[in-house]
Amino acid sequence: MRYKLTIAYDGSAFHGWQRQKDSISVQQFLEETLSTILKTEIKIEGSGRTDTGVHAKAQIAHMDFDEGIDSYSLIRSLNYFGKNKGVSLLKVEKALDDFHARYSAIERTYHYFILNREGFCPFLKGQVWHLRDHLNLDAMQAGANLLIGRHDFTSFRDTNCQAKSPVKNLNEFKLTKTNDLIQATIKAPSFLHHQVRIMIGTLVNIGQEKSQPESINDILAQKNRIKAGITAPSSGLFLVNVSYKL
Amino acid sequence: MRYKLTIAYDGSAFHGWQRQKDSISVQQFLEETLSTILKTEIKIEGSGRTDTGVHAKAQIAHMDFDEGIDSYSLIRSLNYFGKNKGVSLLKVEKALDDFHARYSAIERTYHYFILNREGFCPFLKGQVWHLRDHLNLDAMQAGANLLIGRHDFTSFRDTNCQAKSPVKNLNEFKLTKTNDLIQATIKAPSFLHHQVRIMIGTLVNIGQEKSQPESINDILAQKNRIKAGITAPSSGLFLVNVSYKL
Repeated sequence: MRYKLTIAYDGSAFHGWQRQKDSISVQQFLEETLSTILKTEIKIEGSGRTDTGVHAKAQIAHMDFDEGIDSYSLIRSLNYFGKNKGVSLLKVEKALDDFHARYSAIERTYHYFILNREGFCPFLKGQVWHLRDHLNLDAMQAGANLLIGRHDFTSFRDTNCQAKSPVKNLNEFKLTKTNDLIQATIKAPSFLHHQVRIMIGTLVNIGQEKSQPESINDILAQKNRIKAGITAPSSGLFLVNVSYKL
Repeated sequence: MRYKLTIAYDGSAFHGWQRQKDSISVQQFLEETLSTILKTEIKIEGSGRTDTGVHAKAQIAHMDFDEGIDSYSLIRSLNYFGKNKGVSLLKVEKALDDFHARYSAIERTYHYFILNREGFCPFLKGQVWHLRDHLNLDAMQAGANLLIGRHDFTSFRDTNCQAKSPVKNLNEFKLTKTNDLIQATIKAPSFLHHQVRIMIGTLVNIGQEKSQPESINDILAQKNRIKAGITAPSSGLFLVNVSYKL
């Protein structure tokens, strides 16, 4: 039987989601802990990788297990081990046999948080990019609007990105500000490696008025990573939703 | 010259705001650090005490200092020391000579956060009261509405409370829920010792349907601490605003 898992994790202590040879990943922690609890070898597959230091409020994964599961007990047991690691199992649901956390997904939503004030926030340690100088949010939104739609995002992907095509659809890029905290909400069927963080780094240049919103068109057209801004720190990035066909 | 300070702090590591003989308080940390930076003995007075473990997003204090202050430098210097302690100086403003952080205040606003789901949140460690069983928010709000106004809050104050009168005005008590996070916003000119936390503990009984919203009227009328609910944990409580006459 196939099960769908919803998981939140603080990425700070992990070398990303995906199993690695020499360093601890969220996937490895979950597979080992689930195997211990369920007394059989459990493999899980996530909706996608998150990089080292990137957080998730609702990562989705699936696993196969031959028996029925008491989701309440499994959550309690997993979180007993997960508490100190910052990994929290939120939901366990029965899924259809052909459900696939990665291939059935139709849209991913990320949030990116920028704290835009002089003083740090004691409650958002490792959960924001702290930028002290005032950012022009309207300019950033104007730039973000030019990223929406179908584009060749070569300028906005890491040079190590292994995706076959750099052409992607970006469904939404919305910036809001509450007090001193800027939240970017970014939705797409899928993303290139570091795409969100490079888009944020580029928009911050616009917010700092080092470049104009319209520069986004040039950067897209030039298809050259060096033309875009820096890769924003992983600390501000959260995977918050994965949507599936009903 | 008198200065108004705005400070955020994570209360977890402190024995409250107020200076203590044998344990570290936020006030002591700030006075010692400001004295070091400004090279003269600095005393500060806060808008009010917060208990051990209670947080602040915008505590207000005042201090006197004979010279002009470069607020940017002072914030940078203080936060260099405050970063590891979870104490962040947010603003330094010149105040009128008769400004008093405590006596000039006309309203305090607190937030209380309850995480209402099975799994913990890795990003809100020490910042919520985690209650797994579903809470009836409408019932809680109906109970909260009966607390608004001018009442004898004897049932809702700690037995050690030293306030002269138990009669207080409660201006606002609003509950909202975003995903699994319940936020209570509570406003009053001033509060009794543990008043917010005892009100929350009592409303949680109502949310769990162990008692009816109307029970609030009885509890108020009986003027007996034992009739109200438990004192909710300090971790969920944040001082978020102090208002002053303009």
